[in-house]
Amino acid sequence: MQLIADNLRITKPDIRHALKHLDPGPVQALVKKCVARRPYAIDVNTGPLGKYSEQGMRFFMDAVQGVTDLPLLIDTANPAAMEAGAKAAKNRIILNGFSLEPRKLKTILPLAREFDADIVGFLLYPDSRVPRDAVQRFDIVLELMEKAEAAGVAKERVIIDPVIPPLAWADGIFQVGQVLQVIRTLPDLLGFPVKTIGGISNLGTNAPDKGNRLIIEQSYIAMLASAGLDYALLDILNADLVRAAQVSDILATQDIFSWGMVP
Amino acid sequence: MQLIADNLRITKPDIRHALKHLDPGPVQALVKKCVARRPYAIDVNTGPLGKYSEQGMRFFMDAVQGVTDLPLLIDTANPAAMEAGAKAAKNRIILNGFSLEPRKLKTILPLAREFDADIVGFLLYPDSRVPRDAVQRFDIVLELMEKAEAAGVAKERVIIDPVIPPLAWADGIFQVGQVLQVIRTLPDLLGFPVKTIGGISNLGTNAPDKGNRLIIEQSYIAMLASAGLDYALLDILNADLVRAAQVSDILATQDIFSWGMVP
Repeated sequence: MQLIADNLRITKPDIRHALKHLDPGPVQALVKKCVARRPYAIDVNTGPLGKYSEQGMRFFMDAVQGVTDLPLLIDTANPAAMEAGAKAAKNRIILNGFSLEPRKLKTILPLAREFDADIVGFLLYPDSRVPRDAVQRFDIVLELMEKAEAAGVAKERVIIDPVIPPLAWADGIFQVGQVLQVIRTLPDLLGFPVKTIGGISNLGTNAPDKGNRLIIEQSYIAMLASAGLDYALLDILNADLVRAAQVSDILATQDIFSWGMVP
Repeated sequence: MQLIADNLRITKPDIRHALKHLDPGPVQALVKKCVARRPYAIDVNTGPLGKYSEQGMRFFMDAVQGVTDLPLLIDTANPAAMEAGAKAAKNRIILNGFSLEPRKLKTILPLAREFDADIVGFLLYPDSRVPRDAVQRFDIVLELMEKAEAAGVAKERVIIDPVIPPLAWADGIFQVGQVLQVIRTLPDLLGFPVKTIGGISNLGTNAPDKGNRLIIEQSYIAMLASAGLDYALLDILNADLVRAAQVSDILATQDIFSWGMVP
């Protein structure tokens, strides 16, 4: 299980401020801190970016690539911004991402072929509704793969995101179980080692307390690792969570063990 | 997942001393501390007890039952001690346990019928060797169940212990994965909701460091809960481990969730 930093987000006031003033300083300071924790990649969550989307995305890509050559996930629902990001890329990129939403199928999915990039596929209905259970998610996976291949994107380039829901949702506790089941069974269902990605931070949305949120995230990331998750998007600066993720990954995937390996 | 205290063990010097002097004080003090953490049951690990086994087992049963009416696991490989424990029982008991070892099949397994008790079945070869992988464990489960039914013990009364190995073993990391697979698939394989039990404390045998041991145990107990383990034997006085177990159990088995449920 590879860890991807989800720390760079437009929802953070200082990052929004940096964009407004095209000041790379705060972005680069944050990314440097993340890189020091040795993630596999950095998620660049710019949001839609409004009407200056191309300029905004170039700002982020230039700022981030100025301080790291790690792979970058370009995390936007705006096709123009996604394309600008891919064009500005020097690092390896992953497009994050597409869904069955017609606009995304038409404008974002083809970019994966154009830029020879992996692309995240969200298990959501065309109207962005969340599926009710694992079976509905399996149907969506098959449709996503069909659309990808029709667009000239090999199914091996699609990284499936089953969309970990907030536990605070009415059926959140049921959905987190269904997500584990999807991750565990997808490779068998599809007949090849399909890659999966999950955002851990969603789980604790609206948690009233940091300690409770941490222990829930630690337990769930162990379950995700055991189910075979390939990429975990998380707060890479949360040392307790990262340690749980690393230890879980050792238990789930390593062939050898010594106590000296425990981080 | 029910939590069972594994704290009462003959290997502890003060417990050995209490037995020698037939002084229930230290035993009762420890059990009271455990009961305050609200386990499902208490494992009474007396060891073989030597030639005064009946007297020794009665001492333990009387001492423990003097302070709790929780279910008790009678944890001994000595048939005479096991029988003495069952005879001295006022609380509900679980015999812990039998294996394919001929002596245990002949002398311990029949006690489950005689005393109408659940019994733990260890996935070990007749000579107590540990099986190499999940497939060998499945074969042993089938044999154990056959032996149980032949002895008049319904298969529903057998709680399977796949024997969690120390990670320090040469192939320990492989075996802990195989154990998860056994727990996950056993109900399907047998066609009924067979109960499983696992001893978490084994995992960290010879761990050089308490912190490393804790994070490993926390991650693994989340995986066990997610795999469907029914009974976790653990140090019930380790509040951090117990909290991870309780949170994992909520994530793995509950139908409803609110952040107020997180212990």
